[in-house]
Amino acid sequence: MPFAYLACPACGEKVKSYLNPFPAVDIIIEVAGGIVLIERKNAPLGWALPGGFVDYGESLEQAAVREAREETSLAIVNLRLLGCYSDPQRDPRQHVISTVYVARGEGTPRADDDAASLAVFPLSSLPEPLCFDHRKILEDYGRLKNMGLI
Amino acid sequence: MPFAYLACPACGEKVKSYLNPFPAVDIIIEVAGGIVLIERKNAPLGWALPGGFVDYGESLEQAAVREAREETSLAIVNLRLLGCYSDPQRDPRQHVISTVYVARGEGTPRADDDAASLAVFPLSSLPEPLCFDHRKILEDYGRLKNMGLI
Repeated sequence: MPFAYLACPACGEKVKSYLNPFPAVDIIIEVAGGIVLIERKNAPLGWALPGGFVDYGESLEQAAVREAREETSLAIVNLRLLGCYSDPQRDPRQHVISTVYVARGEGTPRADDDAASLAVFPLSSLPEPLCFDHRKILEDYGRLKNMGLI
Repeated sequence: MPFAYLACPACGEKVKSYLNPFPAVDIIIEVAGGIVLIERKNAPLGWALPGGFVDYGESLEQAAVREAREETSLAIVNLRLLGCYSDPQRDPRQHVISTVYVARGEGTPRADDDAASLAVFPLSSLPEPLCFDHRKILEDYGRLKNMGLI
């Protein structure tokens, strides 16, 4: 499905628009007691890393800072790249390429409009279900963390 | 410029299409004697890493393998993530987010349609001009290489 169809505002005709994968960021925010996860308001329902789509004209790092603030009210510092997750099936809705950062959160985590609720979990007891490929992402993170590499 | 405008095929009206940054890959291909660079046929003219846009439904790794083959005729193995480059100004044409891989090239490098010419350069004597932020990318690569980290 490399095309999307828009409706012409004048005549209603279908207009073919070329589709690229959608760039997004997710952030593993480290705070006292573990990492911050949000409970999603919209399908797919479940727990997920804070994150979202990258705006045109915004760097990945800027998107990570913005999304962290919007979804958790936290400022993030010490951004480190964990990896890129681009399997076309990782998001059931569309092809989303996520660049994942690890960062330290400063402030008090507080759910904002985008998230139904928010909680801090130690890596050893993550909630169910975890959406998308976020369990795999957190396993990759845990491995590097155990080796002292991130 | 977060929107692009398409022309309706029925009435010619402008149709507003939401624009995301464009995901791309670039590949630092290691071969005997150095790394492979291509001389671009289209503006901006100069030398560049092999690479290109990621297709919808294709992973970043698949895009890297495809672009390497299309532009250099090389098979690539041992893919390693170098980093992500997303400064909105890094490409003068549009906002392109590049995920950069390092890989080993197998076969004989040979320029294909997409590239005017191709050559192998040792890191110590790169050609001028290098397009986009590819000098910075190669400096980042050189630093990690010197430390034995990639």
